[in-house]
Amino acid sequence: MFVKDEALKISRLAKKAKDVLSGISVPEINKTLLNMAEALFSSCDYILSENAKDIREAKSKRLSGALIDRLTLNKSRILAMSNSLKELAAMDNPVGEVIETRERPNGLKINKVRVPIGVILIIYESRPNVTSDCIGLCIKSRNSLILRGGSEAFRSNIAIFKTLNGVLKNMGFPPGAINIVTTKDREIISNLLSLNELIDLCIPRGGESLMKEVSAQSKIPVIKHYKGVCHTYVDKYASLDMALNICYNAKVQRPGVCNAMETLLVHKDIAAEFLPKMAALYKKANVELRGCQKTRSILKGIKMAKEEDWYAEYLDLILSVKVALSLDDAINHITKYGSNHSDAIVTDNYKNATEFLNRVDSACVYVNASTRFTDGGQFGMGAEIGISTEKLHARGPVGLKELTTYKYMIFGEGQIRE
Amino acid sequence: MFVKDEALKISRLAKKAKDVLSGISVPEINKTLLNMAEALFSSCDYILSENAKDIREAKSKRLSGALIDRLTLNKSRILAMSNSLKELAAMDNPVGEVIETRERPNGLKINKVRVPIGVILIIYESRPNVTSDCIGLCIKSRNSLILRGGSEAFRSNIAIFKTLNGVLKNMGFPPGAINIVTTKDREIISNLLSLNELIDLCIPRGGESLMKEVSAQSKIPVIKHYKGVCHTYVDKYASLDMALNICYNAKVQRPGVCNAMETLLVHKDIAAEFLPKMAALYKKANVELRGCQKTRSILKGIKMAKEEDWYAEYLDLILSVKVALSLDDAINHITKYGSNHSDAIVTDNYKNATEFLNRVDSACVYVNASTRFTDGGQFGMGAEIGISTEKLHARGPVGLKELTTYKYMIFGEGQIRE
Repeated sequence: MFVKDEALKISRLAKKAKDVLSGISVPEINKTLLNMAEALFSSCDYILSENAKDIREAKSKRLSGALIDRLTLNKSRILAMSNSLKELAAMDNPVGEVIETRERPNGLKINKVRVPIGVILIIYESRPNVTSDCIGLCIKSRNSLILRGGSEAFRSNIAIFKTLNGVLKNMGFPPGAINIVTTKDREIISNLLSLNELIDLCIPRGGESLMKEVSAQSKIPVIKHYKGVCHTYVDKYASLDMALNICYNAKVQRPGVCNAMETLLVHKDIAAEFLPKMAALYKKANVELRGCQKTRSILKGIKMAKEEDWYAEYLDLILSVKVALSLDDAINHITKYGSNHSDAIVTDNYKNATEFLNRVDSACVYVNASTRFTDGGQFGMGAEIGISTEKLHARGPVGLKELTTYKYMIFGEGQIRE
Repeated sequence: MFVKDEALKISRLAKKAKDVLSGISVPEINKTLLNMAEALFSSCDYILSENAKDIREAKSKRLSGALIDRLTLNKSRILAMSNSLKELAAMDNPVGEVIETRERPNGLKINKVRVPIGVILIIYESRPNVTSDCIGLCIKSRNSLILRGGSEAFRSNIAIFKTLNGVLKNMGFPPGAINIVTTKDREIISNLLSLNELIDLCIPRGGESLMKEVSAQSKIPVIKHYKGVCHTYVDKYASLDMALNICYNAKVQRPGVCNAMETLLVHKDIAAEFLPKMAALYKKANVELRGCQKTRSILKGIKMAKEEDWYAEYLDLILSVKVALSLDDAINHITKYGSNHSDAIVTDNYKNATEFLNRVDSACVYVNASTRFTDGGQFGMGAEIGISTEKLHARGPVGLKELTTYKYMIFGEGQIRE
């Protein structure tokens, strides 16, 4: 089959399945998720043996250690995937909620009701757990799903897909409720992204080049799970112990993720006291600092931060540091270089906290807490498909609710417009 | 100035203004809207004289009567525009609402807060009242606005813009809060649509070719105010009098708008009784009917509906009519030919009503009422910028609330992630 035909066939199947999916009862959905959790675990050996083949190929192609680590499954990672599905089963059903009700003077009753979006396309790289996470989230929110994973994890993704799709078959779900692209031809990405009549939403997950490729080509609306250049601004009125704690946590606890801090901003009046203490802590954790001129006059011997450092998402134990002349200076820096993901202020000053919260135009703005909390689980929203730095539809963690839309159901008794 | 530079200059000004705008107090915003309402009315002569020039040019170019009618202003149309601004002033402020609050076990307080989207671009055709409606909605929702109107209404739009921008200047608003493109070069549309770093949302308003042009080119998210191929399905279990009333209203009351009915579907078991009565009513209103084979065996002498009729948005006194074999057949027809705008069922059967509401994938689905109610005002949402047939962000009437997004404000006391 030509890849164009494969794209069409899968998308038509998915669109057809979505109508059946939205009619399946809540207990059936949850039972299915529990059966999926079970199946993942009992198919552990099969999945691991397929995963081993992917790893062997990755090694033979001399892919990077970090990539091979992301690709690698083991029993405990499969257990974690299985547990995520169980947690989804226990979560509130997002579909059918009446979000608003209006009764009009003419007696029309207008309900705004939460419904599935329809067909969701996920294009992702390397981590095979994304396969089961996305399947779980889409089944729970009753969206049809089309998966296109990275070629490195080809066999692992298919093994997980087959295991979970087997459960759907047994439970009587329509074919096409979940789909995986089986061609390795990258051409299919552009084919899928042109099918805006069949696919309602695309969520790309991966590196900057994938994101750019998808955004540039897509005729389907895209919600980006994007990069995080997160800032922490230590205000003149910060409690310094709290600031040391928060800045250490935001950089060091898990540097490879999008909600980790990449730039530290410190008010000039406390920089001389704060920065040496902070630098001593970072030194123990092997954090490399790159500073502005003023920072380097306080912390002798550190590297100069270049213009590109302020834009950088290091995802590593590297931090750029700038002394800010004022709150305004700090906010302007974030506006210019930030990625609208997560930014924090540490301060005891009410006015400065409020100004920071209002003026910083990011999905998540913090007072006196680590940016590392930007996460569906930490927010109490449950599993998430990513963090959106878009402004429309979903902003911040994209969980079950964000995988829904609404429609108006209007109940009349013969009303006509005058 | 090159048009590319004009696009950049305007967009940068708008982006700069948005931060100031979001800080203006609610009483100031509402006072400004009232002053605008006043100014429109007191500048009536100026606006009408500029409008007269546009009309003269349109006539000399032999533009259609319908277009010249849409273009024409008079005292009562300006009064209506002025009243819309007054109504906006009286409406609830959409910004700042705390949509959700969560307090986490670690004490973090997470508020999901409604905020302006930022910079909104409206590309529209002919009707000059859109200029003041959009300015009002954007000032109330505290978004910066860039307007690009049709060249036919060039002088009228600029006159309205100048009048309202004068009020903003007097009230101390930042320059760039509202902007209008003053070049007639269409090149600027593609320039603006490429500025996704500066503009957050584009809403096109106009005919199908404008919509397609904008969608194809835009790097900015687009919410489409799209065409309406609205259906009414008269079920086997319909009260026939109610059905006659609703179907008459949905087609005849104002045929030129997007929520008017374009296709009537009638269950086969009642077609022989219902269709002749319905046709008699339509005949008095000069509605031309185009039917399927079965319809034509009941209503002798009417035209055959061709395949393209089922896709047609007539916006006129023309109606396509199909006899449906079943509810399922009717829903499948709507799924295939509809535009996801507004569709209605007339029935006294609970199960059929429910199935229709659930399975028809449109922004607004009705039981026993006319599709003509799809409208922000009729829904009790106030003024609207259009009807969205998109699935993401806004669906159905796009009013003040839909011109906002949210951000998470997180209040901590030093929390770090374990």
